[in-house]
Amino acid sequence: MLLSELSGLIGLKLAGKDKEISGVNTLELAGPTELSFLANAKYEDKLSTTKAAAVVLEEKYTDQVESALISENPYMDLAKAMHVFSKPQGCLEGIHELAFVHNDADVDDTATVYPFAFIGKGTVVGPNCKVFAGAYVGEDCTIGAGSILYPNCTVMAATAIGAGVIVQPGAVIGGDGFGYAQVAGKHMKIPQIGTVELGDQVEVGANACIDRASLDVTRIGSGSKLDNLVQIAHNVTTGDDCLIISQSGVAGSTKLGKNVIIAAQAGLVDNIKIGDGAIIGAQAGVPNDVKPGFIGAGSPLQDQRSFLRSSVSIRKLPVMGKKISALEKRIKALEAELFKGNEDE
Amino acid sequence: MLLSELSGLIGLKLAGKDKEISGVNTLELAGPTELSFLANAKYEDKLSTTKAAAVVLEEKYTDQVESALISENPYMDLAKAMHVFSKPQGCLEGIHELAFVHNDADVDDTATVYPFAFIGKGTVVGPNCKVFAGAYVGEDCTIGAGSILYPNCTVMAATAIGAGVIVQPGAVIGGDGFGYAQVAGKHMKIPQIGTVELGDQVEVGANACIDRASLDVTRIGSGSKLDNLVQIAHNVTTGDDCLIISQSGVAGSTKLGKNVIIAAQAGLVDNIKIGDGAIIGAQAGVPNDVKPGFIGAGSPLQDQRSFLRSSVSIRKLPVMGKKISALEKRIKALEAELFKGNEDE
Amino acid sequence: MLLSELSGLIGLKLAGKDKEISGVNTLELAGPTELSFLANAKYEDKLSTTKAAAVVLEEKYTDQVESALISENPYMDLAKAMHVFSKPQGCLEGIHELAFVHNDADVDDTATVYPFAFIGKGTVVGPNCKVFAGAYVGEDCTIGAGSILYPNCTVMAATAIGAGVIVQPGAVIGGDGFGYAQVAGKHMKIPQIGTVELGDQVEVGANACIDRASLDVTRIGSGSKLDNLVQIAHNVTTGDDCLIISQSGVAGSTKLGKNVIIAAQAGLVDNIKIGDGAIIGAQAGVPNDVKPGFIGAGSPLQDQRSFLRSSVSIRKLPVMGKKISALEKRIKALEAELFKGNEDE
Repeated sequence: MLLSELSGLIGLKLAGKDKEISGVNTLELAGPTELSFLANAKYEDKLSTTKAAAVVLEEKYTDQVESALISENPYMDLAKAMHVFSKPQGCLEGIHELAFVHNDADVDDTATVYPFAFIGKGTVVGPNCKVFAGAYVGEDCTIGAGSILYPNCTVMAATAIGAGVIVQPGAVIGGDGFGYAQVAGKHMKIPQIGTVELGDQVEVGANACIDRASLDVTRIGSGSKLDNLVQIAHNVTTGDDCLIISQSGVAGSTKLGKNVIIAAQAGLVDNIKIGDGAIIGAQAGVPNDVKPGFIGAGSPLQDQRSFLRSSVSIRKLPVMGKKISALEKRIKALEAELFKGNEDE
Repeated sequence: MLLSELSGLIGLKLAGKDKEISGVNTLELAGPTELSFLANAKYEDKLSTTKAAAVVLEEKYTDQVESALISENPYMDLAKAMHVFSKPQGCLEGIHELAFVHNDADVDDTATVYPFAFIGKGTVVGPNCKVFAGAYVGEDCTIGAGSILYPNCTVMAATAIGAGVIVQPGAVIGGDGFGYAQVAGKHMKIPQIGTVELGDQVEVGANACIDRASLDVTRIGSGSKLDNLVQIAHNVTTGDDCLIISQSGVAGSTKLGKNVIIAAQAGLVDNIKIGDGAIIGAQAGVPNDVKPGFIGAGSPLQDQRSFLRSSVSIRKLPVMGKKISALEKRIKALEAELFKGNEDE
Repeated sequence: MLLSELSGLIGLKLAGKDKEISGVNTLELAGPTELSFLANAKYEDKLSTTKAAAVVLEEKYTDQVESALISENPYMDLAKAMHVFSKPQGCLEGIHELAFVHNDADVDDTATVYPFAFIGKGTVVGPNCKVFAGAYVGEDCTIGAGSILYPNCTVMAATAIGAGVIVQPGAVIGGDGFGYAQVAGKHMKIPQIGTVELGDQVEVGANACIDRASLDVTRIGSGSKLDNLVQIAHNVTTGDDCLIISQSGVAGSTKLGKNVIIAAQAGLVDNIKIGDGAIIGAQAGVPNDVKPGFIGAGSPLQDQRSFLRSSVSIRKLPVMGKKISALEKRIKALEAELFKGNEDE
């Protein structure tokens, strides 16, 4: 594809020579037919050494390369260029004869269903969906237009999935929530008879788990993205456009506002509320409600600045202990001296 | 179903008007044909506003609703009612022609095996079991009566699963333990030739992992429940009726007593013993044996009270540091003054 | 098999009586036809009570048993003996008629492909590979000789897997990395157009995840072993012979040297470098580069000794707080006294 053609597709102004472009790569790795990008000023010096055919960059850097696509948000425009060049996963189309589609399921003619995929009774699969091999969709589900269920993911009964959703391999949506009534030291299973709803454009990471509600619904807001191995317990709800990074867990009935970010390996207890736009640091432990816009870290959660101060202080703890001991001795000496002084008077 | 009929089924006394009941829901969400429950006194005020047809509650609240099922343990009895109304997952019965059942496997006539399920050589699947699509059961396994293997779970060779066990989607039972002999900087795999045993009524969460033993057996006691994404390493054993919450991990050969509770994202090192009834807090790190009944939190584990005190103290650390500096100055001043005073004498 | 025959196979000297050996077990559990081992001096007393037919042990213990295999590294030689007796998982051979193998895939005649396994277009599966039921291998992959893909694992397009690799059940290799450009509060997906490469003899644990690179490649060095539920983000690379224990996570573009060990539940932030031979403790949080050979623990990471000191100190924190308060009072008293003293003069 010509650079001029690409610039039209992604809506950027071309400065410099037109060239043939075959793909996208980093400044270091790009070859003479690849497009690259400068999204971080600290890599500016790589502009002089890159072999890239052209670079997506801010206007002020234009003169440093032979061909540029001028952008106000190079990272976003790079993403657009990558969409042009990216090849979707998969090598089949249509409904394969080794797929299982229940007689009472309704799979759109434009959908692709791989061998060994399972579509249960009463389930509706929308236009242009792709259901890969080994994906299981139970009964009475709806899968919105253009959604992709990657291999070996599981969607249990009565799950409602929006449009443009991506479920990475191995993810489990609608497994039973973890609920038991305690009866004389035994754990009596509480049937999990609620459901799961995913809004539009949600992404669920590989081997992530979203449990069905005990009653009511577990809901992930539109545009929210969950990374690999994330755990979402029963009756959790999130607002739109949240990011929940790898290996984090949200316990039962906790409510996230919109645009919440939870970094990796963090844990949130059950039945709390996280305000819009809050940011929870990696490995944090969140025991209580969090206000909108709060930026926190640590377990238990502190505000970011206190956390950093505490972290530094913890390293000084052994020294602090020694200082206290030293002070105790000096005070003892002072007390002895002062007591003696009093006696002398 | 009539409320009077339901009350008979779950063994509760009906007070008030008989009504048609179609399902179960919370006090807030229940409609006029749904049963609700009051399990926590703090929601008592919702009794006056609920639209529920009837409520499971303790006797003292009876007068506040038109129809009540009187219970000494409303949460437990709610669970019983939910069992009446819950519809099991799945839409097929019998052994599907697209299932693979080895000629030398023994699958009970009353069992259900979905398309794309795999039953290996020499494996015995008991009465009323359900093996969902994509579930893999290797050779020489036994699956006890009424057990459910949900989609895409994996049960490797020689695993013994009790009766009434539930394996959620994507769980892996009997994968190799992580064992290597170090030989000149290389890691030489130690074959994992042991097995896994799950007692009766065990539940294994979605994408949880229970490794096979290197030698001997990894064992989960009857009635124990493992949540999603839990890791159980080789040669671990647990007593009966343990609860291991999401994303926790138990390292090799560690032994849990009965009725142990491990909260979310906790980690236990290898080769330790956890006494009966111990409770380990969320995100705890457990480096040593734990006594029966111990309630602990933190990493490394402390008793619950010490942990809470330490947590509070950590937040005060920067202040403590400043206090120590201030004390040092004041002592220096005192010393100077006292020294001067001595000279004056 | 005769002990003398086994001793020849694994290259050890037999001392004592020849016997029939049927398997391997611990000193405590071994029966009269089983081989056992003494790899840790603290179990020496079990030599007198074991029922094992023979024991792999260091020369100095030879006289304590009837039959011994003399070894300088009993644990390693045990592993060799276990390889002799271990029976590989699985009960089928050849390419099953219920497998899906794309017409343009190239599967070696000696490979085994189970029912419900999927081999995509352009993919090459080498000699003696085993692809179990429910395993998905996308298009344009290469699977090196002798590699094993256990049930329900997923290998997405263009992944290159070396020889002798083991992928445990449910593992996901080549799922999309977690990359989004922020556009007015929305998260715009950045296509993940890079790949994944696993060297020879790599092992990937059950339900572990290795994301494909956004650009370029995510690479796991030869001989590296990843435990269950590990998360490897896009563009991570590791050197050879690393060990990454269960539930740990490595964020995007972080580079591990060779022979790095990361203990369980640890987390490494993105874009850092971990030097050769570094050891990261369980539950550690690693925010910065780590030098070769560094042994660290804690979150944020400290060197092992400082971490232990800090851990002890944290428990003393409430006491330290009280000491500081006590010192403050004593100083106040001293100041009052000294001030009075001054007045007296």
